[in-house]
Amino acid sequence: MLAEAAAPLGVEVVVSDPTADPPAAPVTRDQIHGGFDDYDAVRDLAERADYLTFEIELTDPDLLERVAAETDTPVHPHPETLRIIEDKLVQKRRLADAGVPVPEFREVDSADDLRAALDDLGYPAMLKARKGGYDGRGNVPVESPDDVDEAFAEIVDAAQGGSHEDPAGVAMVEEMVDFERELAVMGCLGSEQWGEDGEPERDTFPVTETIHREEILRETRSPPEADVGVRERAREVALDVLDVMEGRGVYGIELFQGPDDEILLNEIAPRPHNSGHWTIEGCHSSQFEQHVRAVTGRPLGDTGRRAPTVSANILGDVDERRDATLSGEDTVFERPRAHLHWYGKREVYRLRKMGHIALVGAESEPTDRLLADVRELRDDLTFR
Amino acid sequence: MLAEAAAPLGVEVVVSDPTADPPAAPVTRDQIHGGFDDYDAVRDLAERADYLTFEIELTDPDLLERVAAETDTPVHPHPETLRIIEDKLVQKRRLADAGVPVPEFREVDSADDLRAALDDLGYPAMLKARKGGYDGRGNVPVESPDDVDEAFAEIVDAAQGGSHEDPAGVAMVEEMVDFERELAVMGCLGSEQWGEDGEPERDTFPVTETIHREEILRETRSPPEADVGVRERAREVALDVLDVMEGRGVYGIELFQGPDDEILLNEIAPRPHNSGHWTIEGCHSSQFEQHVRAVTGRPLGDTGRRAPTVSANILGDVDERRDATLSGEDTVFERPRAHLHWYGKREVYRLRKMGHIALVGAESEPTDRLLADVRELRDDLTFR
Repeated sequence: MLAEAAAPLGVEVVVSDPTADPPAAPVTRDQIHGGFDDYDAVRDLAERADYLTFEIELTDPDLLERVAAETDTPVHPHPETLRIIEDKLVQKRRLADAGVPVPEFREVDSADDLRAALDDLGYPAMLKARKGGYDGRGNVPVESPDDVDEAFAEIVDAAQGGSHEDPAGVAMVEEMVDFERELAVMGCLGSEQWGEDGEPERDTFPVTETIHREEILRETRSPPEADVGVRERAREVALDVLDVMEGRGVYGIELFQGPDDEILLNEIAPRPHNSGHWTIEGCHSSQFEQHVRAVTGRPLGDTGRRAPTVSANILGDVDERRDATLSGEDTVFERPRAHLHWYGKREVYRLRKMGHIALVGAESEPTDRLLADVRELRDDLTFR
Repeated sequence: MLAEAAAPLGVEVVVSDPTADPPAAPVTRDQIHGGFDDYDAVRDLAERADYLTFEIELTDPDLLERVAAETDTPVHPHPETLRIIEDKLVQKRRLADAGVPVPEFREVDSADDLRAALDDLGYPAMLKARKGGYDGRGNVPVESPDDVDEAFAEIVDAAQGGSHEDPAGVAMVEEMVDFERELAVMGCLGSEQWGEDGEPERDTFPVTETIHREEILRETRSPPEADVGVRERAREVALDVLDVMEGRGVYGIELFQGPDDEILLNEIAPRPHNSGHWTIEGCHSSQFEQHVRAVTGRPLGDTGRRAPTVSANILGDVDERRDATLSGEDTVFERPRAHLHWYGKREVYRLRKMGHIALVGAESEPTDRLLADVRELRDDLTFR
C-alpha cells in the first residue's frame, strides 16, 4: 500500500524483505532479499535510496543507524524512536515521563516479580513480552494468582523461543483496562521546512474506533461512536505522543477510552498501521501517501475525512498453512463503495492478515450499518 | 495508473513497452522490452498472462488476435474493436451506420478529393490522418481553398513519414463543429456474467467537460457546465457507442456539444483515457480500477462521483528534449485536496504529457473556481 501511494508522487520504492518473493514485489521497482538484521541487504538498500524507512518494528535500530551514517542516507522515523518503541517497557516509561496517560505497568523479571506486581495492580492483568509482540502474539492475560507461573513461563517461552535461561528483561505487566472502547489516531510528523517556528509539521487523521478479538484488529469505524469531547481528548493525547517521537513519518497510536472517558495510551507503531488503512478511501490523503510525503520531506497532505468509512480485516480461516486462494470476493466487487485490498501474501495460515475491505458511506451515514455490512462481506470470504 | 489500481485487487501486471525502462516499471511485476508489432514480446507476454489488454491504439490488432488464439489468452477489448477504432474513417463509418450522431465526414485520397469534399462540407474543416494520430498530431485544420494542397501534403507526410508515394487510404476530412463545449464520457463494458439477460454489464462515468488547446487536452471538469439534459443525452450517445464496441474494458468517448445542444461523437479510445483521470479521486471506483475489473471478468465498480473534481495536465514546457526535472511541485503538495500524478517519464519535450493534477472540491462546489485554482497550480510548475 505504501508503494501504491508512492508512485503517483514520483517516488520509486525498493524494498528489502526476508522473503524471496515479497508481497511488495508486484508494485516496487526492485526487491532486496535479506533479513531485518542483514547488514549487506540494508547497506545495499541505503546505497540505492534517497531515504530509508521501515514498516515493521522488527527492524534493527542499531543497524539502521550504522548504515544511515555510513551512506549518509536519512532514515525516518529516527532509529532512536524505533529503539524506544520496540521495547514496550521502555516505550511506556518514556511516555509516562512525558506526561502521556498510560495504564499502570511494572517491569517483571521473574514469576515472583509478577506475583508481587499483581498484588499491587490487581487481577486480571496483561503480561506482555517487551519485544517482538505482534497481533496478540506475546500478550498473555493473567486472570488470578493461580495463572502466574504458567503465564510467566509462556511469555518467556514466546520471547526466547524455548530457552528459559535468563528471563530478565523479557517481560512487563500492565493493568487490564476496563475500556469503553478502543480508539486509534494516526499521527503525522513532517518536515521542519513546512512546520511553524522551525518545528516539524504535525497533523493527525480523524479518530478511529478499533475493534479487536483475540487481540487482533478485526474492524475499524470512523467516525467512532465516542462523543466529540472524547475524540478531541484522543487527538490531544496523540499530539503529546508525537512530541516524544523523533523523525518524520506516520505513527499509529492506539488508545483506550476508559470507564470514565479518560484516554490512556495502549501502544504505538512507528509506521502506517492497520487501524489507518481506511484512510485510503476515507480521507483526502491516505496514511500511506502521508508517510511518503513525510519521509521524503514534502508537505503533509489533507488528513480530512471524505466520508464515514469502515474497514474489516480478511484473516486466514484455515487450520494448516497453505497456498492462499480467496473465494467469495465477487460479492465484495459487486457491493457499491466497497473496496478490496489484497496484500499479495502467497500463503495463508490461521488469523494471518491477508487483506482488508473498506466500505465508504454516504455523508453522515451512521457507521453501525456500515459496520454490519462490511462484516457480512468479510464473513462471506474464505480460504477453505 | 492501471498498475496502481490493479494491485489492491490482487491483479499483478506485466507490461510490454518499446522503451527499455518504461514508466510502468516501478509499479509492475515485470517488463518486456518490445515494440507494438514485436511478435516475440507479445507472445512472451501472453504466455505469462491470464488476460491481455492494451493502453495505446498503436497496438497491432492482427498480432494480438494471432497471439491470443495461439496461447488461448483472452484479449480485451476485442482486437476487432481496435481495428475499427484505429482507422478514424472506419470508426466514423461504423458508428454512423449504428445511428451514432457524428460530424459530417468524407474519405479523401488526394488533394483533389479534399477540394471536392470541402465544396460540399464547407470551410473550415479538419483534415485527419486515418491512423496513428495522437494529441493533435495527424490533425490539420483547412481554413480555405488556398490551404488544400499544403494541408494534404502535410497529412500525407505525417502519416507516411516523408514518403508521398501512395496517399490513398491515408486521410479523411470532417466538418469543423462549431461546438459549445467538448464533453467526454468514460464507458465501461463488463462481463456477461454480471449483466442483465446475458448482455455485458454496462455503465458510464459521470459526464466530463474537456478543455483542449492546440488539440491537446489541458483540463477537465466534472460536473461540466452543460445542463442536465445535455449530460443525459451525452450519456445516451455513449451507451449507443458501447453497443458497437466488442470486448470488455473502459472506452474513452469524446463528444461535441454542438450549437443547438446536439451531441456529436468526436473520437473513441478503447482504453482508459486522459479525460477520465479525474475519476481516481473523483469517483468511487476509478476508470483504471474499472478497466482491471472489466478485463479480468469481475463485476464493475461504482462509477458515482464523490465530489466535484477538476484536473489539469502537466505538459512539457521545454524547447529541446531533455531529462525531466519538475520544479514547483511543493505548491501542489501544500494545497489541500490537490493530488499530483507523476507518470514517471524520464524525458520531457514540448507538450509531452508528463503528469496531471487533480483537485477535489467540497460537495456542490462550483467547478469554475476549482478550475481556476488547478490551472494556477499547474502553471506554477516548470521543467525549465
